[in-house]
Parts: sequence; structure tokens; C-alpha cells
Amino acid sequence: MKLYTYFRSSAAFRVRIALNLKGMSYEAIPVHLLRDGGQHRGAAFSAVNPQQLVPVLEDEGHRVMQSLAIIEYLEETRPEPRLLPADAPGRARVRSLALAIGCEIHPLNNLRVLRYLTDVLDLSDEQKNRWYRHWVETGLAAVERRLSTEAETGSFCHGDRPTIADCFLVPQVFNAQRYQCDLSAVPTLMRIHGQCMGLEPFKRAEPAAQPDAE
Amino acid sequence: MKLYTYFRSSAAFRVRIALNLKGMSYEAIPVHLLRDGGQHRGAAFSAVNPQQLVPVLEDEGHRVMQSLAIIEYLEETRPEPRLLPADAPGRARVRSLALAIGCEIHPLNNLRVLRYLTDVLDLSDEQKNRWYRHWVETGLAAVERRLSTEAETGSFCHGDRPTIADCFLVPQVFNAQRYQCDLSAVPTLMRIHGQCMGLEPFKRAEPAAQPDAE
Repeated sequence: MKLYTYFRSSAAFRVRIALNLKGMSYEAIPVHLLRDGGQHRGAAFSAVNPQQLVPVLEDEGHRVMQSLAIIEYLEETRPEPRLLPADAPGRARVRSLALAIGCEIHPLNNLRVLRYLTDVLDLSDEQKNRWYRHWVETGLAAVERRLSTEAETGSFCHGDRPTIADCFLVPQVFNAQRYQCDLSAVPTLMRIHGQCMGLEPFKRAEPAAQPDAE
Repeated sequence: MKLYTYFRSSAAFRVRIALNLKGMSYEAIPVHLLRDGGQHRGAAFSAVNPQQLVPVLEDEGHRVMQSLAIIEYLEETRPEPRLLPADAPGRARVRSLALAIGCEIHPLNNLRVLRYLTDVLDLSDEQKNRWYRHWVETGLAAVERRLSTEAETGSFCHGDRPTIADCFLVPQVFNAQRYQCDLSAVPTLMRIHGQCMGLEPFKRAEPAAQPDAE
């Protein structure tokens, strides 16, 4: 099993957590998003993923793209330990929390979007950083409202075992901290983040622990 | 079964297609995103969804948010007709195509993002429209590269029956046409769009056919 990854990509970080939680070993193939004008845009990686995005998982001749699709694939092919609950409403809740991060926050703040703000729209770094923090803070506040009020929240996002929601939450908190977002309004979320980071599978997945870390 | 919906919301449009494909009847509860300063931000709807986003599905006392999580929930609780293939690599492919639209295109172009561009960043309508078209055109081009080269593409995105990927594709094409994006570079995708729009479940889901259409 191979994972095309970049240490700082939070989408790749999600998949690394899932692989570690499932106890699977894999070969990390680093794709540097800044070097060589962006290795993800080069011919070699474009042949792997025409969308030019990491992560990509290669497994038994199959190529899987998009972090959530990769984790669902792992869940279907290597079910234990489960990263989705057994009941349909619970599974929907976990997926909806993951998507609240994967669709409402992260897409607004990835590298190519930030570049469009500065390079095409000619915005200042200050405006760019405010944009970044705005979507992180409003997006995480919406997740906090759910986590702090819904009965299913446990020591993790859903009950007392890590799920796909936690795989999405932790990398987003890392990004938020890197951009010095205000996280004082999201205590439930930060408690869960702390709980996750006490676990080896999360720690081993973090950017600084990767072979391509700088 | 109830669906909180807005005729023009492409996320709600996806769910309407899935409900129609599965032959399920539902009560549509319109939430007007422009009236009353945005009904989705009012107290009534915020109690339904703290994320203040449509669509929300209510089913037997369960509330499900996020269009992909809703459709996966429908797939698990009302399996026929299937909107995901039976094999894990095929399921991953369908999900990754849906996410290529749901994560890489749509989040950049929804109402609150466009408002931030004009109201906070003080950009012109021309700059806003260029932003819109940029993400639609580059995002759909990436999807086209996959659809036009991968053997699994059939009369629909994956084989010869509609899947979740088609539920995501069609509303995105509607949006692209509304903003006069250039679709000449995505012929495979437009062929599949035409195929879908020949089917009653897709037609009945389109914005103009909704009870709250204007």
C-alpha cells in the first residue's frame, strides 16, 4: 500500500491517522507542493491523479483519491477497528461532522485558494490571513455548537472511540493553530483534540513526524 | 420524511435527485436563503441545524445534515435502487468524483463566500464572477480528465446507472450554466449531464420544478 502525501497537507494527515488507527503499514511517497513549481502539478503526479491533489492511496492496483473516499475505502476493505459507528444515524452524524470540516472550512483555505487571493486578487497578507481565520473560526464554531449540545458526543466526537470525524478534526485544529486562529470559543472541540493527540496513531500522523517534514 | 430545502441550493438539489431516484416521497420545507436576512440564519432553522445550512433531512426522529452524509444515509436505510456500486474500488471512485465537486468546486462558490468577496473584501461583481468561473472551470476540467480517460465511465459517471457522482454532477452544471461558465472543454461531463436530464428523477429535482421556485 502506497500513500502519496505531503507532510503539511491536512487531507493527507486525515488519511495517515486512519491508516495508523487501523494499524496498517504503508509506503509514504512525498509530493512536495512548493518545490519544482509544485510537484503535484508535474507530469509524473498528474498521471497518478489528474486532479493534481494529494493524498492518493494505491492499493492492489487501485488508485483512490479524495481523503474521505480513501477512508471509506479503508473502512470497507479493512473494517477493524471501525471508524464509523454501526447504526445508520450514528454513521450519518460522523460523516456530517467530517464534511462540516472537509466541505465548509478546509476548501476555502488550501494553498491554491490562498494563492488566488494574493496573486490574482492582489490582496494583502493581512487580508489573506483574515480570510483564513474567518472561515476557520466560523466553521469550527458551528462544529462546536453541535459537539457541545448533541448527546452522542463522548470523549471523542462520537462516543468513546475515534471515528472519521476525529480524523478530520485534528488536522483542522493543527491548521488553525498554525494560523493563530482564536480557539477560545471551541472548548469541546479542543478537549477532543487533546484526547486524540494523547494517542499514538494521531501523534505518528502529525506533520512534524513525517519523513518529508521540514 | 422531511427535507429542509431551498430551490436554488445545489446541495439540496443533490439530495432531491437521490430521493427521487430511490422513489421516496418527502415533505419539502422551504428555507429561503435571501428572505428575512436569510431564514437559514434565523432562530427557527438554527435550532434544526446549528450549522445554518440546507439541506437537512428528518427521518423517524433523526436529523441528518450535509448532502453527502444524507445520501449515504439513504443508501444505507433504503438500499434500492443502489446509488453506489457493489465493489469497494468502484464505490471509492464514485465517492471521489462526488467529492471532487462537493469539496473542490462548490464550497468556493456558495452564497456566503461570494458575499465575503463583495461585502468584506470589497471586490467588484466582475472580480466575483471571475472567481466563480475560475473554480468551476478548473474544477470541472479536472473531473472531465477523469471521466474522459477512466474505463469505468459509462453512459453515466460510473457505468450505465446513475450513482451519487451523477447526483453531484448535475447541480454543479446547473450552477455553471447560470454563471455562464465556459463548458466547451468538458464534453464528457456534458454528455452525462444530458443523459441524466432525460430522466424524470433528475428533472423533478431541478430548481424550476420546486414548490419554492421563483
